[in-house]
Amino acid sequence: MYAGHEHPRNLIPELCRVFYELRWVTGTGGGISIKSGNEIFVAPSGVQKERIQPEDLFVITTDEKDVSGPPPSKKLKKSACTPLFMNAYKLRDAGAVIHSHSMYSNLVTLINTGGEFCITQQEMIKGIRNDQDGTYLWCECLDYLFEVAVEMHKLGMNPAKPPVKNIDGEQKE
Amino acid sequence: MYAGHEHPRNLIPELCRVFYELRWVTGTGGGISIKSGNEIFVAPSGVQKERIQPEDLFVITTDEKDVSGPPPSKKLKKSACTPLFMNAYKLRDAGAVIHSHSMYSNLVTLINTGGEFCITQQEMIKGIRNDQDGTYLWCECLDYLFEVAVEMHKLGMNPAKPPVKNIDGEQKE
Amino acid sequence: MYAGHEHPRNLIPELCRVFYELRWVTGTGGGISIKSGNEIFVAPSGVQKERIQPEDLFVITTDEKDVSGPPPSKKLKKSACTPLFMNAYKLRDAGAVIHSHSMYSNLVTLINTGGEFCITQQEMIKGIRNDQDGTYLWCECLDYLFEVAVEMHKLGMNPAKPPVKNIDGEQKE
Amino acid sequence: MYAGHEHPRNLIPELCRVFYELRWVTGTGGGISIKSGNEIFVAPSGVQKERIQPEDLFVITTDEKDVSGPPPSKKLKKSACTPLFMNAYKLRDAGAVIHSHSMYSNLVTLINTGGEFCITQQEMIKGIRNDQDGTYLWCECLDYLFEVAVEMHKLGMNPAKPPVKNIDGEQKE
Repeated sequence: MYAGHEHPRNLIPELCRVFYELRWVTGTGGGISIKSGNEIFVAPSGVQKERIQPEDLFVITTDEKDVSGPPPSKKLKKSACTPLFMNAYKLRDAGAVIHSHSMYSNLVTLINTGGEFCITQQEMIKGIRNDQDGTYLWCECLDYLFEVAVEMHKLGMNPAKPPVKNIDGEQKE
Repeated sequence: MYAGHEHPRNLIPELCRVFYELRWVTGTGGGISIKSGNEIFVAPSGVQKERIQPEDLFVITTDEKDVSGPPPSKKLKKSACTPLFMNAYKLRDAGAVIHSHSMYSNLVTLINTGGEFCITQQEMIKGIRNDQDGTYLWCECLDYLFEVAVEMHKLGMNPAKPPVKNIDGEQKE
Repeated sequence: MYAGHEHPRNLIPELCRVFYELRWVTGTGGGISIKSGNEIFVAPSGVQKERIQPEDLFVITTDEKDVSGPPPSKKLKKSACTPLFMNAYKLRDAGAVIHSHSMYSNLVTLINTGGEFCITQQEMIKGIRNDQDGTYLWCECLDYLFEVAVEMHKLGMNPAKPPVKNIDGEQKE
Repeated sequence: MYAGHEHPRNLIPELCRVFYELRWVTGTGGGISIKSGNEIFVAPSGVQKERIQPEDLFVITTDEKDVSGPPPSKKLKKSACTPLFMNAYKLRDAGAVIHSHSMYSNLVTLINTGGEFCITQQEMIKGIRNDQDGTYLWCECLDYLFEVAVEMHKLGMNPAKPPVKNIDGEQKE
């Protein structure tokens, strides 16, 4: 037992179940890592994320030294994405990292082959905050914008360019 | 504790959870306001709407004077959409205002750049009533029509024009 | 209280909740009627179908004579679709009638303006049975086929014509 | 009562309910079979899979001899897909067989008329394992890839060919 809903050992399994319902973690893909003080909590590799238990998490320091891991009998391995997570902590000073396999985040990378995601005509700025809840909200806002962008492509519109308003209800670009 | 399921302090948090499941409030976007007598109940700004508690609501008069607000320790701010809500109350004599971020309401504004939403061949007239439940139903009906319109665009049809019936099963416009 | 899960007064409210989750009844649209012996149970008009209570149903004979109705204080009216339901009972000897507002049943009528729904390459024949459960299953199967047809249209295929198999993975018609 | 969550008589009904929520078993379509030692557990034909009870399963040997079946009063028949399931057990040494009616597995067969499913630019390799849980995960990963492929087709992309990266954000093939 770990104290409190907000403890990473409780929060990560709960969020993984939420992400599963949102379809951000599918099959064995996707995951989440949270930094708490000098410790970083990382989910195991190659498992169904929505079934993770508090004891299944790996704990490493910000220097990437192992602090603890799941019971050896479970034969779990640290997420293969750990080096990517560490980059986010070191280079961006992240408080948490969400690795989403959502359909829209996936499709939007195939659409935006120039390496940059641009969208206009949307208002979602309040979703961006810099705490742990903020990271989750940020992802929900981003995923929403990714879905808008993909749907706009299906409707023949360019998300990066605003449609021109006119008076007969037909869209111009 | 506030008496009764229909009290705005109970109804707004409940509807926000319903709207979250319907994906009308996403991230920190969307919300709801309800008028009860001379008091208008408004949700706080920039929070996850599905987690709102009864005590989190702001109460203002129809003259926009503050009556009460959430506990200061929560550091909440009134919805930035309050002026828009007030316009609906003053100019349209609304009983409630729903601010939807649904994907279809969003996409339909991008499709209909002429400023007017038109759709034909659909029957949803019974959904429009003028009480609070009516507002919710009206929105559900509208969202349904928005989805029909977006899907028709994807299928190459113009929602504002009825298809011509013919005898070989192929559509003409 | 009415005896048994299968009694129409219990079954109709339960199925309406299932249909709401399936998005077959939206806003105030859609509904269900069930024949039990010489009595036909009909849902009220213009209400949220997922909130129907056992006492809210109207009962009429197969000759369209009123047997009983909801408490007058509820001010409910019989479904406006009752004449259509009666046609299904009289002309087709139906055991139950489901009135679906599902997005796919709606879109498929816009696609198939010739008055007949045709689809090939699909296997769903076992879903068709002639009891009440059968009616529900039949609708679930039909709705699945409607969705396939709509998606095929989006993918540029004609549901009524089988694709030609070839050896290079590209589709021909 | 059968001992343990992992017993096929408990696991098959549970998985069928999960598959129903995932929309892999719709109407009476789809199903699952599991091999346990020399016994193969098969779901009944033509029923709503999400309502299967432990006693409803048929048990056959790997030589296709009947071991046991549901109570005769239930008038159930063995899945018509049993010969296909047996091929998977005999020819591929499968530990379990999932028969999915998911929309995406259906549509992807209509798109890929060449008989082979190819997709690139996706990373899902960890989902493939050779135990029973692995079969379920494999299917979830496959279904995800099928959905990506169908969505790519809608967006005008060929799943089998990687998009060419460029510098202006527009896709080339």
